[in-house]
Amino acid sequence: MSFSPLVEKLMESLRVLPGVGPKTAQRMAMHLLERDRDGGRRLAKVLDEALERVGYCRRCRTLTEEEVCALCASARRDDRLLCVVESPADQLAIEDAGGYRGRYFVLHGHLSPLDGIGPEDIGLEQLEALVAGGEAAEGGVEEVILATNPTVEGEATAHYIAAQLAPHRVRLSRLAYGVPMGGELEYVDGGTLSRAFNGRLPFLGE
Amino acid sequence: MSFSPLVEKLMESLRVLPGVGPKTAQRMAMHLLERDRDGGRRLAKVLDEALERVGYCRRCRTLTEEEVCALCASARRDDRLLCVVESPADQLAIEDAGGYRGRYFVLHGHLSPLDGIGPEDIGLEQLEALVAGGEAAEGGVEEVILATNPTVEGEATAHYIAAQLAPHRVRLSRLAYGVPMGGELEYVDGGTLSRAFNGRLPFLGE
Repeated sequence: MSFSPLVEKLMESLRVLPGVGPKTAQRMAMHLLERDRDGGRRLAKVLDEALERVGYCRRCRTLTEEEVCALCASARRDDRLLCVVESPADQLAIEDAGGYRGRYFVLHGHLSPLDGIGPEDIGLEQLEALVAGGEAAEGGVEEVILATNPTVEGEATAHYIAAQLAPHRVRLSRLAYGVPMGGELEYVDGGTLSRAFNGRLPFLGE
Repeated sequence: MSFSPLVEKLMESLRVLPGVGPKTAQRMAMHLLERDRDGGRRLAKVLDEALERVGYCRRCRTLTEEEVCALCASARRDDRLLCVVESPADQLAIEDAGGYRGRYFVLHGHLSPLDGIGPEDIGLEQLEALVAGGEAAEGGVEEVILATNPTVEGEATAHYIAAQLAPHRVRLSRLAYGVPMGGELEYVDGGTLSRAFNGRLPFLGE
């Protein structure tokens, strides 16, 4: 036996959500139908509206329903710094960490030739135009911080971008590698530990 | 910093789903916006349609978009047996276990005076009418199986229904309590074990 066709279809549709298998989808469908129809209706409405209206910021490509996102529109950010990230979630993590006052550029992914994801899919032409455009003008980009993930694909993407931007007069930097704050050395993986060792800094002993 | 207002609203709306906290809601919103807009649109549409059209079966109160559910409409089920369950999910579990060929009645909950859930909220008038209606007629209900959950509330609900149906000429039964199949006694809780002990059966030694 199964539920009615429409209830089954709802359970099937819920499985587009990441981490939702058959059991969870059933629990979600039952919850919405039995206990929170108003919440479910609101979800359907907002989901439809968001998928319709949320696009990419014309300047930095982050997700926004405006033409230009709030951060790009802000006059209080430093135009000389441009931080390249793989996703809006990475951008949020850096913002929440605090301290960075420059601009962003969001790739929405990384280079992955095997999956058919090339430079044009992650907006690298637009990135180069953005860097080149400000070059001569006052207040152009002076430093590009390559904050792609410290994974094989993220590294490869950072190297590709570095080569692409080499002809332009910008400093390129990459997030520092090292042991995470608050961790115990015993549990840090070997690759990270050896990079932290090789990149050791003079101790200032304040 | 946060995401754009509409993206934040989507994350907030996703939290109506059971077991979805802020982090999971963010992951779901990013997945839908970045990688599966078609799936998201389909979900919004089906969710809206299901909440609009799925109601209760006129006879057994299970979830269905028809007036009478497929199981109630089937001529192949035994009208003399009526199994009372708390939820459509319980009904599905019993069906999937196999063996039962009678009808169902779905309470959509259990009696819970503290939460203001009384007999009328779980359809007990309708249940009594269903049992009383078939009483005299050929093919009426002969046995009501009280398959509410083996919890305090489920037990109380079963007792209430038993008292309510006492004036009618129906047998009342309750699912057997005992140790679960395939389990190890060591890990069975004391309450279950003592009920299984008191309810021990002659061993047929086939």
